[in-house]
This record gives sequence, C-alpha cells and structure tokens, in this order.
Amino acid sequence: MPRPGLIIHGGLGATEAEQSSRQVRREALQEILKDAHEVLKNGGARQAVVRACELLEDCPLFNAGTGATIQRDGQIRLSCALMDGREHRFSGLVNARYLKNPIRLAEQLQNRVDRLLDPQGAELLARALGEAVHEPALPEVIRRWADERFEGQYAGTHGTVGAAAVDGEGGLAAATSTGGRFMAGVGRVSDSCTPAGNYATDRCAVSCTGHGEDILDEALAARIAIRVDDGMSLQRAFERSFAEAESRGRDFAAIAVDSDGHTCWSVTMGILVAAYFDGKGEFRATF
Amino acid sequence: MPRPGLIIHGGLGATEAEQSSRQVRREALQEILKDAHEVLKNGGARQAVVRACELLEDCPLFNAGTGATIQRDGQIRLSCALMDGREHRFSGLVNARYLKNPIRLAEQLQNRVDRLLDPQGAELLARALGEAVHEPALPEVIRRWADERFEGQYAGTHGTVGAAAVDGEGGLAAATSTGGRFMAGVGRVSDSCTPAGNYATDRCAVSCTGHGEDILDEALAARIAIRVDDGMSLQRAFERSFAEAESRGRDFAAIAVDSDGHTCWSVTMGILVAAYFDGKGEFRATF
Repeated sequence: MPRPGLIIHGGLGATEAEQSSRQVRREALQEILKDAHEVLKNGGARQAVVRACELLEDCPLFNAGTGATIQRDGQIRLSCALMDGREHRFSGLVNARYLKNPIRLAEQLQNRVDRLLDPQGAELLARALGEAVHEPALPEVIRRWADERFEGQYAGTHGTVGAAAVDGEGGLAAATSTGGRFMAGVGRVSDSCTPAGNYATDRCAVSCTGHGEDILDEALAARIAIRVDDGMSLQRAFERSFAEAESRGRDFAAIAVDSDGHTCWSVTMGILVAAYFDGKGEFRATF
Repeated sequence: MPRPGLIIHGGLGATEAEQSSRQVRREALQEILKDAHEVLKNGGARQAVVRACELLEDCPLFNAGTGATIQRDGQIRLSCALMDGREHRFSGLVNARYLKNPIRLAEQLQNRVDRLLDPQGAELLARALGEAVHEPALPEVIRRWADERFEGQYAGTHGTVGAAAVDGEGGLAAATSTGGRFMAGVGRVSDSCTPAGNYATDRCAVSCTGHGEDILDEALAARIAIRVDDGMSLQRAFERSFAEAESRGRDFAAIAVDSDGHTCWSVTMGILVAAYFDGKGEFRATF
C-alpha cells in the first residue's frame, strides 16, 4: 500500500519583514500541515491539497487569498490551479477577483467542461455558486500600495502557496494559489494558473513559487512531473530541472511528492517557506 | 550550419463545412507558408512564426484573429502565445478582445517584465501601443451564434493556428493563436496562452491545437519539448506523448520542428490542417 505524503509551501520569503516573522510562519505552516494531514488520511490527496490551500489562503502571512498582494492599480487578482493526478485533470482561475478562497472554485471546475476561467468567467461562476463577494485586501497591503504607488519601485516581492499530496490509495494531487507579484502591471497573469506552476500525474505532484515568468519559461511543474513519468526519480528530476534553471538565472522554487510518498523541494535563490512530513511521519520545516 | 525548418497549422478540421473547403484551406496555408519562409530566410525563426501567425489570424478560414469563433455571450476572446526558444522566453495574452493580430502584442511582451496578460492587461497594452480597436467577428460567426444560442448544442468545434520554426542560425520559436471553442462558456481560457499549448527550447518548438482542456491536462507542448531536451528524437517524443494521449482519450494535435530542421506532427483524431517544408525544401500539406 502506498505511503501517504504531504508537503505544503508558503512561497519564497526573502524580505526582511518575512525573515523576522519566520517563527510565526513556521508555526502557521505546521498547523495547516496537521489539519491537511487529517484530511489526507480520511478523504484523499485532492481533498487534502484543497484544504491546505484554503487554510493558506485564509492566513494573512501568505500571498494568496486573504494575504494576497496587489497589482499596480490597487486591485488584488487571484490565480490558482488544482490538478488531480489520478484523473489527470487540470482546472484553475486566471486573475479572479473578490473571492475568499479561489481554490474552492478551481475544485468546482474539475467536473465542468470549461476548466480554466478568466476574471469574467470566474465572476460568473462565483455568482452561479452563490459565493459571497469578498475583498481580500489587508489594510497594510493597501497602505503599502498607496505609499509606493508613485515611487516607481516595482521590483516587488512575489509569493504563492501550494500543496502536493499522495494518499494511501496512491492518488496524487497538487494545488497552488497566489496573489501574484507586488505592484505587477494591471492584468499580469502568474504561472500558478497554468501547468507550468501546478501539475500532477499518477506518479508525482508539483507546486511552484517564485518569479512567475521564469516558471512559465521553464514550464517547471510539468518539466519535473514529465521527467518522473519518463522514469527519473523525483530527486533526480529536481536536480536536473534546477541545474537547468540555475544555468538560466531563474528565481523560483518547487515542492513535490511522488507516488512512494517521498517529498522533495528545491530553490534557486532565497528561502523556501515550506513544511512536510518526513519518512517517519514527523512534521518538518524547510527553513 | 543548421537546416531551416518551418511548419504551420490551421487547426483540426472535422466539420463537414471544413472538409468541403479542404482545397481552399490547403492553398491558403501554402501561400502563408511561402511568405513565412521568406521571413525565416531573412529574419529568423521568431519573426517567421509571428509572421505566419499574423497571416493565419488574417485569414477568415481559420479560428484565430479575423476568423475567430465566439463564446456563449456572443463575444470573441483571443488567446495566443509566443515562445522564443533561444531566449527560452514565453509571452502571451489570455482572452484578449478587439484585436486584429493578438500575436503581435505577444511579441511586444517578449521584452517586458510582465509577459502574460489577462483581458484587461491586454486592453491597456493595446491602448499604450496605439493598436486600432478591431472587432474580429465575421457575419457568419455572429449568425451561427444567434441561430444556435438557445438550442443548447454546445459541443462546439475548436481550432487554433500556429507555427514552429528553426532558422539557419539554429534559433527556434513557436507561436500559437486561437479563438477558442465555439459556444464555450463566458471567459473560458484555452491552452494556447500557456506552455501546454505553445513551447520552445533550443532543441525544438511545438504548437498544439484541439480540445484545450485535454492539452492543458497533458501539458502537451512542454511534454514533447522536455522529452527532446532529455535526449529523445522529436519523432520518438511525439510517439510516446501521443500514445499516452490516446490511452487517456485525448482529442488534439501538435506540430513541431527540431534544431536539425525536422518537422513532425501527430493527431489523436480528426484531420490536422497543416503545411510544411519537406527535407528537400518542397511545400507539403498534411491533409
């Protein structure tokens, strides 16, 4: 019987503020990991990654849902994706607005004909499903935007949340959700709603975070998963994909789990904020 | 010195109307192929695929730009992507509106920080660049929408245009542009604006067409290109990727070229409408 595995991340933490709150983030991640692990045992991989993403979206420490960052026009745009590896099925939202938990809509999309929706499509779906209108902007995000709006300092921080899991039946799933890059241009789309940022097969599940354009350029999540499809170990697929990434000056990270329950992560620069179960079922943090 | 190669496609042609116009389409494709080949000789791979896509977008026989199909609300939404394999750089538009040649904007995005834009982002970019407002809806598309609007017959046809090229310097590029699926839900996003539908490296360039959700699920263009990165021949990468696709009941096709100038294409069902140069520099059609 396959060994369950679960790894979650809260993005790349590189700013001073993020580093100073490291312990707070670690504790938040570990609480979420425990909660999602209960779901993994009782419900399966897909439910577990959705639950993990939902809790990460609800936590103001991470750039997704409630903690989402802001684009140059002061608006929050949320992108996310869910991939069920057993069904080999991808679904997601591109730059959705006024949602509390975009990942829940991505899950609803798994069983629809149209499985990737733009902002207007997401709005109509939310309305059809009776989702309450929710403005996720935190006061400090709005204030930071107002302060920096006219300074032209747009080398903004980015971040994402995500989860990858394998359950006791060998079902795999990955979920990823993001608020994008701080001060990104209006309507800029991140990698998180594409198979570059979130991908799963019946052998492994991968979620990425970092500079979205770099992740798109590498088709990173798909790159790792396809290599595992072709017989590489997850570890080897990471090593090769990150060696290529470093040779091309990329700025990103990824987490993954394979069908044997091995977890894996790597990062080209900065600190990856992630938590996982080790081989003995202990809770661990990567930072 | 590498041998230049070029292949272009006008999507999967499966309807009766499309079959009856086969000769017309073949001639249109061959004219476009010749034009893009001139650009390939003088300008390089990236310019050639953009030029091919632009001409395909301008031709009312194909589902992109002027010939684009329509979503359920009577609106045309155009998605496209360009990938420069030498630069290993992806750019694109998600569901852009009122554009004549979306692929031209994707090319402009190659040199920007934000390289994938949603409908609002695309609109602002078009305005910033002084692009004229263009309503691409053909009368027959509008009429078909009006006729079928209330019949609930949404098992619509889909289509895409695309090009893959390698130039004499070994530079590779892929470009893909689509009007999506006829009668798709409002805001549905196709694969064409993601690395699943359009991908290139320094070894090969791939453009896909067919059922967008199936292409996303397989991360098809990236899947083929990454396999070539890992040492498979382009032919073998196609065989393996399409064998997997058939085992999973997928409905799509892809075209590609590798750094040796070999062209390749495959299709799971239906007829792929494509044209290419064979090894002796002759113009050929796949249908």
